[in-house]
Amino acid sequence: MNNKMTSAHIVIVGAGFAGINAAKQLGKYKEIQVTLLDKKNYHLFQPLLYQVAMAGLSPAEIASPIRSILAKCVNINVTLGNVTKINLQNQKVKTEFKEYKYDYLILACGATHSYFGKDEWEEFAPGLKSIEQATEIRRRVLTAFELAERESDPKKIREYLTFIVVGGGPTGVELAGSLSEMAHYTLNKEFKNIDLKSTSIILIEAGERILASFSPDLSEQAKKDLVSIGVTVKTGTRVSSIDSQGVHIGKEFIPSRTVIWAAGVQPSSTGALLGCELDRAGRVIVTPFLHLPEHKNVFVLGDQASVLGKDQRPLPGLAPVAIQQGIHTAKNIMRSCEGKELLAFSYFDKGQMATIGRGRAISEFSGYKAHGKIAWIAWLFIHILYLVGFRNKVFVFFQWLWSYITFGRGARLITKQEWKNHDN
Amino acid sequence: MNNKMTSAHIVIVGAGFAGINAAKQLGKYKEIQVTLLDKKNYHLFQPLLYQVAMAGLSPAEIASPIRSILAKCVNINVTLGNVTKINLQNQKVKTEFKEYKYDYLILACGATHSYFGKDEWEEFAPGLKSIEQATEIRRRVLTAFELAERESDPKKIREYLTFIVVGGGPTGVELAGSLSEMAHYTLNKEFKNIDLKSTSIILIEAGERILASFSPDLSEQAKKDLVSIGVTVKTGTRVSSIDSQGVHIGKEFIPSRTVIWAAGVQPSSTGALLGCELDRAGRVIVTPFLHLPEHKNVFVLGDQASVLGKDQRPLPGLAPVAIQQGIHTAKNIMRSCEGKELLAFSYFDKGQMATIGRGRAISEFSGYKAHGKIAWIAWLFIHILYLVGFRNKVFVFFQWLWSYITFGRGARLITKQEWKNHDN
Repeated sequence: MNNKMTSAHIVIVGAGFAGINAAKQLGKYKEIQVTLLDKKNYHLFQPLLYQVAMAGLSPAEIASPIRSILAKCVNINVTLGNVTKINLQNQKVKTEFKEYKYDYLILACGATHSYFGKDEWEEFAPGLKSIEQATEIRRRVLTAFELAERESDPKKIREYLTFIVVGGGPTGVELAGSLSEMAHYTLNKEFKNIDLKSTSIILIEAGERILASFSPDLSEQAKKDLVSIGVTVKTGTRVSSIDSQGVHIGKEFIPSRTVIWAAGVQPSSTGALLGCELDRAGRVIVTPFLHLPEHKNVFVLGDQASVLGKDQRPLPGLAPVAIQQGIHTAKNIMRSCEGKELLAFSYFDKGQMATIGRGRAISEFSGYKAHGKIAWIAWLFIHILYLVGFRNKVFVFFQWLWSYITFGRGARLITKQEWKNHDN
Repeated sequence: MNNKMTSAHIVIVGAGFAGINAAKQLGKYKEIQVTLLDKKNYHLFQPLLYQVAMAGLSPAEIASPIRSILAKCVNINVTLGNVTKINLQNQKVKTEFKEYKYDYLILACGATHSYFGKDEWEEFAPGLKSIEQATEIRRRVLTAFELAERESDPKKIREYLTFIVVGGGPTGVELAGSLSEMAHYTLNKEFKNIDLKSTSIILIEAGERILASFSPDLSEQAKKDLVSIGVTVKTGTRVSSIDSQGVHIGKEFIPSRTVIWAAGVQPSSTGALLGCELDRAGRVIVTPFLHLPEHKNVFVLGDQASVLGKDQRPLPGLAPVAIQQGIHTAKNIMRSCEGKELLAFSYFDKGQMATIGRGRAISEFSGYKAHGKIAWIAWLFIHILYLVGFRNKVFVFFQWLWSYITFGRGARLITKQEWKNHDN
């Protein structure tokens, strides 16, 4: 056995799709040591986060404790922590409590949302990248209906019942579709004073079409589906400002008390700690082997990285990309430990999917396109398949089954941020 | 039909056990109108709140949206709101958005915890009366283990692995037992650097024995059970102060980073809005008919009220008491509408139960006592029976089944209070 292997220490930062899959792969090799750092103690299945925001699922149904996932890997040390510094020369990673020396480093901290320089909009339009943001959106959405119900001023009722989603990618489409279903199927029988059919859901997209990463005919199908369930789709429309009263689109103003941001993504700022070249979007530029050009033992994966695909365009920030990169990198590291050549990463395109709502989805894979109920069932199946944790798979399956039959939603709670409360 | 009935407007404040059951009962009479006000949009099954705090259940599994529970009651208006003023003379209830005129008023706002005048302790020792507090406790407990795992200073590790529960009633006992199980069964295989067998869980009770409302032999059994699973029980011990470093008991100081408060209860402050006589604990004194002595159309129920039982002592703040009072009061109101005499409330004592942990519980009913596995199974059964919502019953059942088989816990997430977060 190569000497490099017996003492190799791999540090992985981030337990998202890339990090957790790299760890699971490396967990098979007892000879090496792995430290997995994350700011959170759980792995989050982000594709279903919008269902937490829309009160359909509970956070714990789409998240698994990292320790549980890797419990059987005796060579992996899972640690809660923030990376504050990376020293490429000395091969050290600093956290707020300790410094780690690494032989190999994997950075896979994902992305957060971007307000294109207008961070002050965040307060009025939360994004959807974390559980805390999802429950905050849930709180705002459910509260809007409650406030409308008790309001007497028709103008205010209109504002409470106007919901705006900014961003026409899969996240924005899924949010808009789900909001519409909530208003028209789930809540419609439970409010006595307001007519929920008058709920206005507006999806705003700056580009020419929503779901721009899909082929035009699928985009068009998705738009039709959204419109058929009561969503107003505004494409070629750029938001100029957002405040507590609503959204400005050039000269037009749409009064709304609930705005959700799904329009821009930026990579985690940990990438900047490397001091290496970043692309225009702030992602770390890596070689086809997924490591830094000057440091063959430092890998950057997932949404944080910029690597060219077969079409010479950067690979998209999708879960299958991150998963494959994680596994590939772990194998590459073992090859390096064994003194073998690294292999370039080749993305096996598993296509993409987006759901609009009950019985409606679009998907494309290798030129094969589908929409409607078939695509929707495939969407459900794929998401349960990739959800981590057997218990979560079972619970999410039953939640969806119950919701489908009853039109109900399993987590319609308005929970606040403050916990100190002397009165119930 | 009595004229009083056709126009009667009943206002219920609080959707806990008393309020929700009063509403469900009144929902059967289409002739009357009911307004149900609550600060939250859900009914919470408080007896299982400790399982949210101990990462076993998700909040949505023990809470149901009030609107869903009462969806079929066309005569009930469910409204999110705070009561700010009560005018007994004019029969009006004021909220932050509207004033309601009532023919009958039911106040059932429950209780919150009391720090016996030391409210500054709350920051260091959260109580357990709301979902927000439960997830805050969960965050502190899980984080303590994580911080111990990455700590190198043995003194600090000791502090992180010392948990203190103040208050030896059922809540405190259930928390302590569950904490112990978490450390010794659930987490023990997942931490590599710390030895979880060294976790110290201390239950502090000012009185002579824990579970003082049970008979002495059952208290003693519960204490033995707690000790057998590694809990240190300190009775006749009063906390003199709590800070960020730990707990002072007279001259003794126990360093701990995680303290949970389960020691004192005080009724909701809405009772004081009545301007009527309160007992020493702050509860509103009511007649055997559960209404105010001077106002026969104003009822106060549940933990907020003080009414004497058959033994001439105030009825305890238990769920079965509140449930029965809610139903009884609703029936009394209908009798009043029909011009009939009110009936005095007579509590059908359903006994009490407390669980210590896996396979261990105590229960007593009508002099019949049980402990161990039988009591535990009864405890599980009763709690599922009374949980509101079929979906919740099914999910909680499966959670418990899965936990029993795997020793796992279904909601081990550290979620923070702040949602604005530019970095994942």
